[in-house]
Amino acid sequence: MRDVYMVGAGQSDYGSFPDESYRSLFAEAFEGAVDSVDGDFDRDSVDEAYIGTLGVGGRQLGLPGPSVTEHVGLDGAASTRVENACAASGVALRQAALAIRAGVADVALAGGVEVMTDMSGEQTRYWLGVSGETEWERMAGTTFSGVYAQMADAHMAEHGTTREHLSRVAVKNHANGSKNPHAHLGFECSLEDAMNGSTVADPLNLYDCCPTSDGASAVLLASEDAAEELTEKPIRLTGSGQASDRVGLFQRDTITGVPATEDAAEQAYDEADVGPEDIEFAEVHDCFSIAELMAYEDLGFCEKGDAGDYIESGATLPDGERPVNLSGGLKSKGHPIGATGGGQAVEVFKQLRGEAGDRQVDGLSRGLTHNVGGSGGAVVVNVFEEGWA
Amino acid sequence: MRDVYMVGAGQSDYGSFPDESYRSLFAEAFEGAVDSVDGDFDRDSVDEAYIGTLGVGGRQLGLPGPSVTEHVGLDGAASTRVENACAASGVALRQAALAIRAGVADVALAGGVEVMTDMSGEQTRYWLGVSGETEWERMAGTTFSGVYAQMADAHMAEHGTTREHLSRVAVKNHANGSKNPHAHLGFECSLEDAMNGSTVADPLNLYDCCPTSDGASAVLLASEDAAEELTEKPIRLTGSGQASDRVGLFQRDTITGVPATEDAAEQAYDEADVGPEDIEFAEVHDCFSIAELMAYEDLGFCEKGDAGDYIESGATLPDGERPVNLSGGLKSKGHPIGATGGGQAVEVFKQLRGEAGDRQVDGLSRGLTHNVGGSGGAVVVNVFEEGWA
Repeated sequence: MRDVYMVGAGQSDYGSFPDESYRSLFAEAFEGAVDSVDGDFDRDSVDEAYIGTLGVGGRQLGLPGPSVTEHVGLDGAASTRVENACAASGVALRQAALAIRAGVADVALAGGVEVMTDMSGEQTRYWLGVSGETEWERMAGTTFSGVYAQMADAHMAEHGTTREHLSRVAVKNHANGSKNPHAHLGFECSLEDAMNGSTVADPLNLYDCCPTSDGASAVLLASEDAAEELTEKPIRLTGSGQASDRVGLFQRDTITGVPATEDAAEQAYDEADVGPEDIEFAEVHDCFSIAELMAYEDLGFCEKGDAGDYIESGATLPDGERPVNLSGGLKSKGHPIGATGGGQAVEVFKQLRGEAGDRQVDGLSRGLTHNVGGSGGAVVVNVFEEGWA
Repeated sequence: MRDVYMVGAGQSDYGSFPDESYRSLFAEAFEGAVDSVDGDFDRDSVDEAYIGTLGVGGRQLGLPGPSVTEHVGLDGAASTRVENACAASGVALRQAALAIRAGVADVALAGGVEVMTDMSGEQTRYWLGVSGETEWERMAGTTFSGVYAQMADAHMAEHGTTREHLSRVAVKNHANGSKNPHAHLGFECSLEDAMNGSTVADPLNLYDCCPTSDGASAVLLASEDAAEELTEKPIRLTGSGQASDRVGLFQRDTITGVPATEDAAEQAYDEADVGPEDIEFAEVHDCFSIAELMAYEDLGFCEKGDAGDYIESGATLPDGERPVNLSGGLKSKGHPIGATGGGQAVEVFKQLRGEAGDRQVDGLSRGLTHNVGGSGGAVVVNVFEEGWA
């Protein structure tokens, strides 16, 4: 199996840009990725492109892949849309890596894009709802915040997780995001603010929920031979895992965790020949505060049920033993559905290269991305490490 | 690069089934594929699943992959939706093959599904239109039949292609489809009927256009080691190619052909180490009659501009030198968008195994599938051959 390297990564600003198009936002991300390549990058060298998007709003539901890649001059690439709801570009990154591993590509693009803010709240709920279980959840009136609220409620009841534990996720991620110029909600919030937000779906309040964002991400992957020409600071994809589970929460083995995260992480760790103890930092899928706490447990950063204590210990702060969501995460950086998984890789790229500006944590050599589709119907985990194989 | 074999293939009936769901139709196709496997098939052995769907109607726009695979008990497979409009499951098949080639899967599922007939014509036009070029074609009022009508008009003007040439596609494919129990429009039509259909988009009439269909397809692929346990009649994927082009017709180099077909075919032929002269039969993307004629030329079955003469010669009839669309094609078998590419592979599977019933052509050993997204923004060509590597 051929080795795969991340040789470029970029993202647009995440935010509310109702006048932008999926093409213009994607171009911003792609040009950022091109600019980040150390060597001479030729866009004709891109053999394959995988674009993650849910297609919120329905402007280009078919062929969104070729639609955005043609706009940035990738005329020679076979371009495909992949989708697993909010894990769309995490999947895109894995598919681009598979194309390189299979030998059909030397350079491959993975990216994602979403424009979500040019419609009403009711429309947004429709377009997001159709990523949940349709027949027995959405049609019964359940929203995504409702689904995660059930998980939070159960986690609190089973493990003694508290309102404050949830709020500490928001406080940490907003503090991190305040140092990220691309962040959608780049402001700090106090613990008092976070504990007293207006209720969205009890027990989740406004500060437990990520925003509805527009944005795009783009990551350039290369085989070892190609990477040697393109990068001076090699970042290798050492492990990649993907798993599925029942789309509807009511059909899962547990609702206080995400089994697909455990499965995907196990695959990624095995392939990278590491354990959770070796992961120095991570970008995890904090669409809701409870999701980050469950990720700590499912990824093996702490024991089952201990996520509340783990965040309270400060372990996941920038100066802690394992910083999580240095970018600000979905909570503060934002969550433009299709772009999110790729955007997580952008942060890992910047941190491992020492190019993360005010939020740089020094000395990092191995990081992980964790991207969840729906409430856990699909999960992708990728492990990246600096240096050549 | 590991060899890939097609060890099972099945499809649902194609037709108008507004009371069926994407899950029920997919299950019909999947169980057909399972039944077609010679050896003992264990659904836990499926490592990866790729599901093609446009998601017409919007019931399950996010996570349609896991939604259908969980329904057939594929709990252990990483399931992903891939999409390139009408080429969705052609792409799915290629992605499933890449997963095997990359070494992350020994058994992989490729399939597709679409339910389209439970809405109004106006809604259908919307959902199909968003696979065309949105900003400059659809929003200017162009429909898919309009786009293909422009191509037909240009082909007639440039190459002398006639009304009768177009109609011969319909007559041939309906005759073939009349022998296919799964066909949506399984009736024969006369040349007179086909030449005098009511106008849809001049010069295309009703008989030049495929129907709006519901249906699903499923194909099981395996590595050589896995295939040895699963099949007694090995069918190898010897070549696979995919290419993209401008989504909008107005930005292409030509409108009397589909350049992405030429690109994808060249890749597939190179990989299979064959030329067009070696292809004994083909399932090509005849969404409109002109599309089949252009495919003859772009795939190299005849010279540019000669497609009219080629069909008139009878070369592509069941008893001709190179039968095309023995299944009835999109025109007669039907065109449930996401299912179509996989359904083409089902026909190749049956013909190569001698299991095509009344429409069986004896002695075939190498066939091709050709699946087009939109009006040529994405094309996948796969070459299959009987026997072990």
